[in-house]
Amino acid sequence: MSAKYNSILNAPFGAKIRRPQKNGGDGFDDSVRVAFLGGLNEVGKNMTVFEYCGDMIIVDCGLSFPDSDLLGVDLVIPDFTYVERYKDKVKGIVITHGHEDHIGGLPYLLDVVDAPIYATGLTIGLIEGKLEEHGNLNRAKLNIIVPGEEIDLGKFTVEGIHVNHSIPDSLALAIRCDGGTVVHTGDFKIDTTPIDGSMIDLARFATLGAEGVLCLMSDSTNAERPGYTESERRVGESIERLFPKAENKRIIVATFSSNIHRVQQIINLSVAAGRKVALSGRSLENVVNKAYDLGYMDIPENAVISIDDIRSYSDGEITIITTGSQGEPMSALKRMSTGEHKHVHITPNDFIIISANPIPGNELTVGKVIDDLMKLGAEVIYNQMYEVHVSGHARQEELKMIMSLVKPRYFIPVHGEQKHLRSHAAIAESIGIPSKNIIIADNGTCVSMRQNSVKVDSSITAGRVFIDGYGVGDVGNMVLRDRKRLSQDGLFAVGIVIDKASGELACPVQIDSRGFIYVKEADELYGKAKELVTDTLEARLSGRYDDMALRSAIKDALSRFLYERTKRSPMIVSIINYI
Amino acid sequence: MSAKYNSILNAPFGAKIRRPQKNGGDGFDDSVRVAFLGGLNEVGKNMTVFEYCGDMIIVDCGLSFPDSDLLGVDLVIPDFTYVERYKDKVKGIVITHGHEDHIGGLPYLLDVVDAPIYATGLTIGLIEGKLEEHGNLNRAKLNIIVPGEEIDLGKFTVEGIHVNHSIPDSLALAIRCDGGTVVHTGDFKIDTTPIDGSMIDLARFATLGAEGVLCLMSDSTNAERPGYTESERRVGESIERLFPKAENKRIIVATFSSNIHRVQQIINLSVAAGRKVALSGRSLENVVNKAYDLGYMDIPENAVISIDDIRSYSDGEITIITTGSQGEPMSALKRMSTGEHKHVHITPNDFIIISANPIPGNELTVGKVIDDLMKLGAEVIYNQMYEVHVSGHARQEELKMIMSLVKPRYFIPVHGEQKHLRSHAAIAESIGIPSKNIIIADNGTCVSMRQNSVKVDSSITAGRVFIDGYGVGDVGNMVLRDRKRLSQDGLFAVGIVIDKASGELACPVQIDSRGFIYVKEADELYGKAKELVTDTLEARLSGRYDDMALRSAIKDALSRFLYERTKRSPMIVSIINYI
Repeated sequence: MSAKYNSILNAPFGAKIRRPQKNGGDGFDDSVRVAFLGGLNEVGKNMTVFEYCGDMIIVDCGLSFPDSDLLGVDLVIPDFTYVERYKDKVKGIVITHGHEDHIGGLPYLLDVVDAPIYATGLTIGLIEGKLEEHGNLNRAKLNIIVPGEEIDLGKFTVEGIHVNHSIPDSLALAIRCDGGTVVHTGDFKIDTTPIDGSMIDLARFATLGAEGVLCLMSDSTNAERPGYTESERRVGESIERLFPKAENKRIIVATFSSNIHRVQQIINLSVAAGRKVALSGRSLENVVNKAYDLGYMDIPENAVISIDDIRSYSDGEITIITTGSQGEPMSALKRMSTGEHKHVHITPNDFIIISANPIPGNELTVGKVIDDLMKLGAEVIYNQMYEVHVSGHARQEELKMIMSLVKPRYFIPVHGEQKHLRSHAAIAESIGIPSKNIIIADNGTCVSMRQNSVKVDSSITAGRVFIDGYGVGDVGNMVLRDRKRLSQDGLFAVGIVIDKASGELACPVQIDSRGFIYVKEADELYGKAKELVTDTLEARLSGRYDDMALRSAIKDALSRFLYERTKRSPMIVSIINYI
Repeated sequence: MSAKYNSILNAPFGAKIRRPQKNGGDGFDDSVRVAFLGGLNEVGKNMTVFEYCGDMIIVDCGLSFPDSDLLGVDLVIPDFTYVERYKDKVKGIVITHGHEDHIGGLPYLLDVVDAPIYATGLTIGLIEGKLEEHGNLNRAKLNIIVPGEEIDLGKFTVEGIHVNHSIPDSLALAIRCDGGTVVHTGDFKIDTTPIDGSMIDLARFATLGAEGVLCLMSDSTNAERPGYTESERRVGESIERLFPKAENKRIIVATFSSNIHRVQQIINLSVAAGRKVALSGRSLENVVNKAYDLGYMDIPENAVISIDDIRSYSDGEITIITTGSQGEPMSALKRMSTGEHKHVHITPNDFIIISANPIPGNELTVGKVIDDLMKLGAEVIYNQMYEVHVSGHARQEELKMIMSLVKPRYFIPVHGEQKHLRSHAAIAESIGIPSKNIIIADNGTCVSMRQNSVKVDSSITAGRVFIDGYGVGDVGNMVLRDRKRLSQDGLFAVGIVIDKASGELACPVQIDSRGFIYVKEADELYGKAKELVTDTLEARLSGRYDDMALRSAIKDALSRFLYERTKRSPMIVSIINYI
């Protein structure tokens, strides 16, 4: 275990994960239980626990990125209270695929649960990278599995089923125990012409359905969208048509770094067009290197050059693949748009393809990047103009197909907000699953299923744990409230020295502010505020002092004064020294 | 002038608008000049100036709401430097319609430009309300105009042309001078079945086109979208079909408060269904009252009841129209979703229609509100499910129609980001306007047109001015940077008292923090930090002191220490008292 990771968990302050005291979940019996542990609006995405007769397995352990109201929070992981409590029962951790929202919480989970991890080759490769970065790779028991192979995890067996998604090597899971079989789709779509030639194993879903399935849990991301999701190949075809339009311009394609099949297609097209490919963005380079090393990519010799070397080629001889399709603040594309990229300076001779849709919440940042790139004269192609992106998730017709094959007794829509889950539930009803057998769960609930009964309770501790710097869980609501307040009106600090003997002010009051008002313009306000604090203190200091009362009097007087004058409410911090 | 507004502009601190010193714009000549003064990504939306032979008119003066990175900023208005400089040349301010992004800056503009305001009846009514609120109604010279009427403004005449939009009484403008005619569409769509029966005056556009138009400036909002925007009537038809589905549930419709035609339709449908209507949300009540008083609405007696009285009716007898369709933090619908609304408690017996699309940037907040309403059991209908919203802006076919009628020599796409302007320019080219006669402008540029030449210069001072509380322009980049820093990692304050005579610490160092770390967990860290500051000071204090050097030494030592221990960088504020 490296020093770095050690410091996260064993730092003498701030490292203890503060968790609600709610517990429950003692209902280990011969029902098949599914507990939802994610802490997001999306249900059943980041982490799910399966239980049967006292044995548990964990499926996925992801992280999410904070909403803008979680000021200063770096990452959000699920609350591990429940799995920590029953850690001795956990027989294994099974990961469906290598996206952050399915693997990103593992480095933290391994500190509370010491169970082996199972996933396909690429997923294990990406997990290794992640654990290495956190310095706890050597404590992990990593196992590569292949679709069709059954692994024994206590009273469960788990079998991976090959599915299509926006990252290779993705799995659905057939989770069996004496209580019945649960089929969990993971994230999936049905791609009849996938880039790696390997279509989702629909036959296996059909066989499982014929054998009898207790419960289907299925991806609801696109449950509101009718029809079928297009094949990933369509993106390649669109980009192929765009290449000639670029003529002698430099081509820059922004996409998700983990979409290895898309990166492969762009490399193939570039090689065919006589262009060298350069990669920009650390995560992209990491994933491509890992995928190449593991044999998931086919890159001709000399096809890829270093970004440092693009100057040796004319614009028409270059394709740059870059991160930043979401307009992320420090990403390569963002830096290009603001002129801050070390190697890539945007000119009217750039032809830029944003091969991604904005994830909800990123519309404005993506729009700003496009705007800035256009102002630099570049041509920018995005998905509203050409079909340069397809989703990795199944739409309504695909969802119906899976349900029809699996023919489950119970259906639990997962991976979605309430509206997606409800749409997915309506689809299930439309193909004949009785509504009483459809369960819309929520994070913190546990669904217990037997052949003839189903029960939902909400006794599981679940929620979000915030990671800020090295701190896991030490940023709670009070810290966030203070940050919010500071972000709105800044702070107003007062320094006071009181003579303990006389109970009087020992020197003039000091005042300072940050993020409140432009200081040069505030001289008169500062002067008045000093007078006010001095008067307030002198009225109360008469040979004795009560620290709390003083602070409170200063705060009240200053708050009122500053609000009346500025209509702002900075945070007031009084530092009182007694000599 | 009321005391309130006075305090905004004459407060002795923070009131001076700090502006860049760039000027220019001295090119008053016999070319027709259009200067773009907005400060947003969207070009030509908030404020535009027309100039000819030394006379100026201003079209629209709007505000915008701050992006999330403008921490603590309440509103954003255009920079008025340019119009203030030439205020004696301004012959009038013409407003196209009553939306905030076209009228919201007027209360501030009136402090620097003393020109008469011209707009249609409803727009003037809404401007009156706004000026009254700011306490400067009595200084405004308000004039109601009607479509077809020509008003003389110095060397210009201006004629309003009736257009359809999501607020009644909207105008396009024909701006004439001896240099030629400019047609400015304002915000518009072509609605062949508008609620008030009054379709956009296409004939007038045609007549102007026949007479000869120097320049067309047209709304680019929907320039990326093919086809035609649906009629507002379509929304009424969709909602009409939904009413029976609500059965005996309470109906709640969230929409934009200024969409008076939609509110009218919902009232009509409710009356027909035997439901009483209650309004929730201050802005909605204000606009409806104003529109009703001015005769823009037809509300049967007793159709509308107070929100206090909904308890006297069963759920099936009530329709509530509410604000909050964008998930705004303090809005009525948001409060309903969190259980904080005083009068409306959401139950499974609520049927909620969100009659609006999320404005870009609001997707997450709207999604959260829908999610929370659904978790309370309500049925929620939104635009992806039924056509319960239509745009107020023209799509590609409508844009082509206007261009074809107006047949301008020059075309300037306005009201949009670069991508919208470029799409709109491509449409203009597609119908035969030569690309050399299409000008993509930016805020801060001025386009000078003659019959046979066009010139663009970017010498105009333009930008955003931030309003925070009473302060106009006193929040600049430094204040925002501090707020950003405070919002990420909070603050760490140090109080020090130094004995001037001995140059030594007069008492122990005091420490406090906000928004940094949960205090109970930070005792050990605080202790170490105090030691560090004390050691740092003692090493430097040897009978003399240098205030700046001390602060800098404390900051360096603490920053390094806190980052090493927490990987966070709180703002460090040292208050040093000398006794």
